[in-house]
Amino acid sequence: MTVWLRFSRHAITLAVSLLASRLILLAFAADPKPQFKLVIHGGAGTISRQTMTPEMERQYRDKLAEALRTGYKILKDGGSSLDAVESAIRVLEDSPLFNAGKGAVFTNVGTNELDASVMDGASLKAGAVAGLKHIKNPISLARLVMEKSPHVMMVGAGAEAFARQQGVGLVSQKYFFTERRWKQLLEAKKKEMQRSSNASPPTPKEASFGTVGAVALDQRGGLAAGTSTGGVTNKRFGRVGDSPIIGAGTYADNRTCAVSATGDGEYFIRLGVARDISALMEYKGKSVKEAAETVILEKLAALGGTGGVIALDAKGNHAWPFNTSGMYRGYIDADGKIVIEIYKD
Amino acid sequence: MTVWLRFSRHAITLAVSLLASRLILLAFAADPKPQFKLVIHGGAGTISRQTMTPEMERQYRDKLAEALRTGYKILKDGGSSLDAVESAIRVLEDSPLFNAGKGAVFTNVGTNELDASVMDGASLKAGAVAGLKHIKNPISLARLVMEKSPHVMMVGAGAEAFARQQGVGLVSQKYFFTERRWKQLLEAKKKEMQRSSNASPPTPKEASFGTVGAVALDQRGGLAAGTSTGGVTNKRFGRVGDSPIIGAGTYADNRTCAVSATGDGEYFIRLGVARDISALMEYKGKSVKEAAETVILEKLAALGGTGGVIALDAKGNHAWPFNTSGMYRGYIDADGKIVIEIYKD
Repeated sequence: MTVWLRFSRHAITLAVSLLASRLILLAFAADPKPQFKLVIHGGAGTISRQTMTPEMERQYRDKLAEALRTGYKILKDGGSSLDAVESAIRVLEDSPLFNAGKGAVFTNVGTNELDASVMDGASLKAGAVAGLKHIKNPISLARLVMEKSPHVMMVGAGAEAFARQQGVGLVSQKYFFTERRWKQLLEAKKKEMQRSSNASPPTPKEASFGTVGAVALDQRGGLAAGTSTGGVTNKRFGRVGDSPIIGAGTYADNRTCAVSATGDGEYFIRLGVARDISALMEYKGKSVKEAAETVILEKLAALGGTGGVIALDAKGNHAWPFNTSGMYRGYIDADGKIVIEIYKD
Repeated sequence: MTVWLRFSRHAITLAVSLLASRLILLAFAADPKPQFKLVIHGGAGTISRQTMTPEMERQYRDKLAEALRTGYKILKDGGSSLDAVESAIRVLEDSPLFNAGKGAVFTNVGTNELDASVMDGASLKAGAVAGLKHIKNPISLARLVMEKSPHVMMVGAGAEAFARQQGVGLVSQKYFFTERRWKQLLEAKKKEMQRSSNASPPTPKEASFGTVGAVALDQRGGLAAGTSTGGVTNKRFGRVGDSPIIGAGTYADNRTCAVSATGDGEYFIRLGVARDISALMEYKGKSVKEAAETVILEKLAALGGTGGVIALDAKGNHAWPFNTSGMYRGYIDADGKIVIEIYKD
């Protein structure tokens, strides 16, 4: 009898253990697949179906898809959102299509000056660089500033000295020469001269847009954001826009969202656009969509600024409001589904 | 009868007019005196009674009082908060006591590189400059960027080219030479060499603090904020801190507050300190005191950063929390009462 009781006690313990482990397995199985996502943009501005040839549109779509697939592979393999953001942006920086890296616009004196920033939503660490003339991938230097220095922001020749110290190869300014951007500079200068002679309003900014950015959520729930740009065509006086300004062009906080912006940089700085979207989520409990739309469609518009953002929250919800006629944008989700859009309608 | 009626109608009209004008006069008399205020800081850091001589303390107090009186005169005469902020900061920039303008610290290569920014709370317009080597009063150049260019931020030689175009006289780097700051650089370099040989922790930042800033409220209810700095002793790689970053070191919005910050710039950028204080007031209905204390005493401290802010709301309430042992700070109210404090206790 004692033996039987002891046996039955063992049997019950065993049965309970088995049941428990089965329940745990079930719980895991019931858990949805890991939510990760990558959202990118290639600039907001005047983009219309009338001026876009099918061949150009295909080139943009192909390059955006390549950037998305590059970041996706990292996220799928369990890599960090930071790695995904950096890798996706490098693809866009290496393409002449966008106003960042290779395709950067020209300044008033015929140089190229590049800015970028990156932020990690888990640690709130950030890195930013501005006024670079010899760095092929500004986004990667911004990341080195974040990870290999006690600083957040470095500018000009000093930032390039840091790059050399970190073993980053510098490129000649010739690397950034593209016929298309050079023509845009000449066109801008021509319009400027006409303007100063007959006081017509400033030229529209078609020739300037093409800033690139990415926001990502990795399998561990980590958010990251990055932005890279060549600034505006014909810029002078060491002008710096919102792209390298943490809180304006870029922000990431795991508790709220990751944001990358593109548009009239001055307005984005004055509003602190990226930081404001995060604040609306943190303090008002807004969704990422409500927060991003409030800042872009209401506040930015009220101030007279144009542009857009991509924003992603820690659950994988994204928003990409803009108040221009188009914004190059796309996302890839955990299933590998790619969506790319260009126009407003 | 008709004549009498007409007369009495006139009499009544006259009486009503007289009564109305008397009521208006009474209303004005009952209206409290115009609320205007100026708050300034001269940096937060390790300031102790033990290391401060009475003579040094007197010098700091005198210069802070001079800056306050300079701004007060403008506000009392009905001038703008922007003018008061700029004028008060110029007084501090022209003194060798503070790490801004004349008293700027030295970089690793023995140069001086100055940063500043300013913001107008009525229009949300802003101006910022960084990496200046030949500008006596960076705060005034920041204001020119805001008012005389379509841009918000200009850096380096480009910003100085803009200064020349605007008729601002450039000064030689010699202007910024002070024995005290030079010794601090030599000391920092010595400590750095010792550190690299025995891996001791980084040196404290006593030699770097002294950033200056001002926030003001004018008689029309307009808020403005400004900040100016030489950065950190022995800085390299074109490092830029929070002072010229709108949203980090400086922010102003008439609906909330004006803020100027001082401290570990990198932490202030990562948190977007100035913008965050404004957001806590805008979105959570916090008072300026609650908002500033939450960001400095809780958020900044949690991240490991040290420093402080001065913050002023549109009703003239101010706060100046800091988590260091001291912060040079003072205010002057509409009555001309001056309060200056240095230590925490």
